[in-house]
Amino acid sequence: MSTNPKFLENKHSKSFPSFLMPMANKNPVIIEDKDKMRNWSRAMRSQGKTIGLVPTMGYLHEGHISLIKEAQKHAQIIVVSIYINPGQFSPSEDLSTYPSDFHGDIQKLMSVPGGVDAVFHPYSLYDYGSKTGSGGVDREGAKEKKVGVVSCVEDGGLGHETWVRVERLENGLCGKSRPVFFRGVATIVTKLFNVVEPDIAVFGKKDYQQWRVIQRMVRDLDFSIKIIGSEIMRETDGLAMSSRNVHLSPEAREKALSINSSLSRARLAAEKGQVNCRELRDVVIKAIEEAGGRIDYAEIVDQESLGEVEEIRSPVVFCVAAWFGKVRLIDNMEIKYMRD
Amino acid sequence: MSTNPKFLENKHSKSFPSFLMPMANKNPVIIEDKDKMRNWSRAMRSQGKTIGLVPTMGYLHEGHISLIKEAQKHAQIIVVSIYINPGQFSPSEDLSTYPSDFHGDIQKLMSVPGGVDAVFHPYSLYDYGSKTGSGGVDREGAKEKKVGVVSCVEDGGLGHETWVRVERLENGLCGKSRPVFFRGVATIVTKLFNVVEPDIAVFGKKDYQQWRVIQRMVRDLDFSIKIIGSEIMRETDGLAMSSRNVHLSPEAREKALSINSSLSRARLAAEKGQVNCRELRDVVIKAIEEAGGRIDYAEIVDQESLGEVEEIRSPVVFCVAAWFGKVRLIDNMEIKYMRD
Repeated sequence: MSTNPKFLENKHSKSFPSFLMPMANKNPVIIEDKDKMRNWSRAMRSQGKTIGLVPTMGYLHEGHISLIKEAQKHAQIIVVSIYINPGQFSPSEDLSTYPSDFHGDIQKLMSVPGGVDAVFHPYSLYDYGSKTGSGGVDREGAKEKKVGVVSCVEDGGLGHETWVRVERLENGLCGKSRPVFFRGVATIVTKLFNVVEPDIAVFGKKDYQQWRVIQRMVRDLDFSIKIIGSEIMRETDGLAMSSRNVHLSPEAREKALSINSSLSRARLAAEKGQVNCRELRDVVIKAIEEAGGRIDYAEIVDQESLGEVEEIRSPVVFCVAAWFGKVRLIDNMEIKYMRD
Repeated sequence: MSTNPKFLENKHSKSFPSFLMPMANKNPVIIEDKDKMRNWSRAMRSQGKTIGLVPTMGYLHEGHISLIKEAQKHAQIIVVSIYINPGQFSPSEDLSTYPSDFHGDIQKLMSVPGGVDAVFHPYSLYDYGSKTGSGGVDREGAKEKKVGVVSCVEDGGLGHETWVRVERLENGLCGKSRPVFFRGVATIVTKLFNVVEPDIAVFGKKDYQQWRVIQRMVRDLDFSIKIIGSEIMRETDGLAMSSRNVHLSPEAREKALSINSSLSRARLAAEKGQVNCRELRDVVIKAIEEAGGRIDYAEIVDQESLGEVEEIRSPVVFCVAAWFGKVRLIDNMEIKYMRD
């Protein structure tokens, strides 16, 4: 693997404390082929090792690194997958502009204390060779199907037609404005699980609904994989880390702080006894809109069912999605039920 | 396992040639718990054995036995699952009257030459204990969901909400009149795969669409499992074996022979050069209706895409579903493309 000389000047390299830089303690093996990946995992397992998977779409930041560190607590061998999944983007979304920097990613992974053992980096996970059976779905064909939603996989005319649906949890929050998102996430995670065959997998609570969707899917489909939710990593000013932050102008980035600051205020108010969700939501909505953000949703929901609540009577999570310019950001904060 | 003294008088025991009876050469271990099943499979694998799964809903007949014999050709250890899956029945279908005879099934399995190593016989595969997370879906709740279809799982108020959809192949043929069927099949097979972790699994071509749905699902979700299609077993008079045949009156059973006899005639005509599918279908529809059957569908479709064809220009399969009284029977015959 050649190194990327631009690494130190990368816009997001500042996310990495300098003490991580010199600790290049492991060169992960890079695997691009599904069968090779599975064989590698099985070889590790046959040596009695446990395997932890950290699925990512690359452009790694400290949030991802924290997932890796969490995985290291639970498994002996760490596999990081780097794959931008077209199945979770609708044709109108930002698949084409999703940031990527594979060489930079590898350098970061080499700097993680304890290291990463393998990087699974497939070219496509939806390419089944020439034997597509019933043939590819063309653009028209996909859109004519009974299902009302089309992802970039179908739009791209691939023959893939199997989707995992977590039918209730996928509907609310991000599911409202991103109709193919959780279908695509559940499906690609199923595929990754079947290729990597891990014992545990770590998902960030930043994508709270995604974490809950995957937990439910694992339970309902009897995967023998422990799902671990890892806490949100924030920049020093409190902005939740995200690969999409790189698209924010300095001005928009400043405004976007209204999300985490207002969420913090709402959480504090709840902890002081405010249980009325409408009032808590108003605090956040007003702050974000005054900063120039456009709210996609700001909802206080039950931590497990993700059903909206009017009064805090159980552990909840306050989830927000908002646009700043052309960038859609999400964030959330868990709120304990203080009368427990 | 106690033996079932009624075995020899069972209505369908005649399906078993007498030479099978004395060869009780293996007592399968009976496993009811998911974790125990998985641990058992892993213990076998750690001994270097390959595992073959034959999923069934019980009330075994020679058709099932042929699947087991097929599995024996491909794997060293044979697991037969016996589970009537509520997820593939809609509340209006025949879940409550689906025949079962577990003790008789075990006796039959003990008589299979080469034997069966384990029978997986769970009480429920949708019961996740008290920690259902978002709670059970009640009858009303399930019906109010966005999805337009409800299976006996949702109707029964279980918390399960994850479903595997093979979105094109599930639509035609049996999918038209049984809206939850393939969703339920793909999901339960995913669950069984995750519990049993087999190397190969055998499905009967009697359920042709089911076999193709599972094949496609395995490809699309990257299961590392080889799917084997096994030929239809027929009674001496040609009726395709089915657990539901037991519900046929002697009179209805006689009439039901119109399915296989007309399918045979159509295949013969096709092999002699008749490529016009409308004419071939007319032969079958007329014969079944004249015998008093009610056609659900009679379609000639591409063997892989299951798309309907007007002229035979590739390998096709002629699929029929028809009602005789309250019993719905399916059958099919593959037809080669003779100009190859």
